Amino acid sequence: MKNDNRPIGIFDSGLGGLTVLKELKMILPNESFIYFGDTAHLPYGTKSKETIIEYSMQICKFLINQNVKLIIVACNTASALSIEILEKNISIPIINVIDPCIENAIQTTTKKSIGIIGTKATINSKAYEIKLKKINKDLKIAAKACPLFVPMIEEGLTDHTITNNICKLYLDIKEFKTIDVLILGCTHYPLLMDIIKKHISNNITIINSANIVAIFVEKFLHEKNIRTPIENQKYIKYFLTDQSIQFNKLASIFLEEDLLNIEYIKL
Amino acid sequence: MKNDNRPIGIFDSGLGGLTVLKELKMILPNESFIYFGDTAHLPYGTKSKETIIEYSMQICKFLINQNVKLIIVACNTASALSIEILEKNISIPIINVIDPCIENAIQTTTKKSIGIIGTKATINSKAYEIKLKKINKDLKIAAKACPLFVPMIEEGLTDHTITNNICKLYLDIKEFKTIDVLILGCTHYPLLMDIIKKHISNNITIINSANIVAIFVEKFLHEKNIRTPIENQKYIKYFLTDQSIQFNKLASIFLEEDLLNIEYIKL
Repeated sequence: MKNDNRPIGIFDSGLGGLTVLKELKMILPNESFIYFGDTAHLPYGTKSKETIIEYSMQICKFLINQNVKLIIVACNTASALSIEILEKNISIPIINVIDPCIENAIQTTTKKSIGIIGTKATINSKAYEIKLKKINKDLKIAAKACPLFVPMIEEGLTDHTITNNICKLYLDIKEFKTIDVLILGCTHYPLLMDIIKKHISNNITIINSANIVAIFVEKFLHEKNIRTPIENQKYIKYFLTDQSIQFNKLASIFLEEDLLNIEYIKL
Repeated sequence: MKNDNRPIGIFDSGLGGLTVLKELKMILPNESFIYFGDTAHLPYGTKSKETIIEYSMQICKFLINQNVKLIIVACNTASALSIEILEKNISIPIINVIDPCIENAIQTTTKKSIGIIGTKATINSKAYEIKLKKINKDLKIAAKACPLFVPMIEEGLTDHTITNNICKLYLDIKEFKTIDVLILGCTHYPLLMDIIKKHISNNITIINSANIVAIFVEKFLHEKNIRTPIENQKYIKYFLTDQSIQFNKLASIFLEEDLLNIEYIKL
């Protein structure tokens, strides 16, 4: 039986990808992970396509040098803007956070009406919209940029009057009255799951990209038979490009555990 | 009479410095300006000291090559973290946004109790606190990081329920009950002037760094006799390191005019 105990590489501009790592750890308890947070350049959400492609390529090369068996682009902005170039230029399998959610959303919607929330860059890129319409051009898509969500989460405001007001501002809009699926198009947003539910209709299914991607990765490893054997000495290693004053504090919010093995590097 | 019609260089990580430029344009109507926005690396507020020094040095060298007569570090984070290194290594006069405010605050406070608000990096650096205490070690200082202010302003939320709630969260704190001076330690914050006034006592004088720095620069040019003669063909040129999707839109909020002469460069 072919197996592969090399680690899985995950990258994000900062902390958001930790929601994906958390789901992966639960679903794939034998795997090792290398998490790359490009904290020197965060946030990607305000940068141009060219810049994001350049950063993403550098990170993928770094992860390949770390001998990962698979790369997960756990950043919606990078998935939206750089995935085509990465897929063309990277020699190992690469999974983005958008495609698994698109697939799930199409399977879930019965009203053929899908909502998407994300950063300004993700929404402006129309990455979800273009991919959804490619599969079914008759879909109705309502996309809304929510630029205050990330800083609000990073302030620890996930259950507060301010959180409620900001959710109301972004979610209580007429465009979302007819949808039956809402894609959380940012890896930070699963931390707002409970409050988002309160601001949208009960009939709307929320697509949590962190969870969906983890399930997709499990299926992929199974199909390719490249899971890590159970006896493996698993580990998680974190690489950051800058010593963010917030990373350690926020990692506890995201992962619910302390980060131990962090290395700071320059790309 | 000695005069100098070379432009004044101003830099910031992004847009905030435009509040300083706006005040400078009003106070110094004959001067030309080169505004440098390091949009590829914004925000500085979450980055390490070493990284901010590296970026600041590169920008100063670029501005010197553009033949500026003076550099204004219109970014509190860069002023807090890199000014000492810049002053040692840069051959032309360099003015930061912190020192003029410190001086003004010391002159203004009668209760010897000063409040400071800013980004996480500025507040954590204790730059204001250290400089204030150096002048008068008996001063009482209350500093509060307000990380939601910048994204809120960039969302155009300067007069909204959310703005009120966030101001309440940050400003309605017991530490600010005894101060008589509040320093706006971030160049974005002058855009919140009206609402901040509503959330603090009438007896508190607000120190608006954009205005204070512009007055300081006017005085400096006058003392050194390096003002631009009135007959000069004045201009404003903008250099950005990345094509931020928000810059043009937000420039109108900050400057109340359209940006015309923008050039995108790599450092």
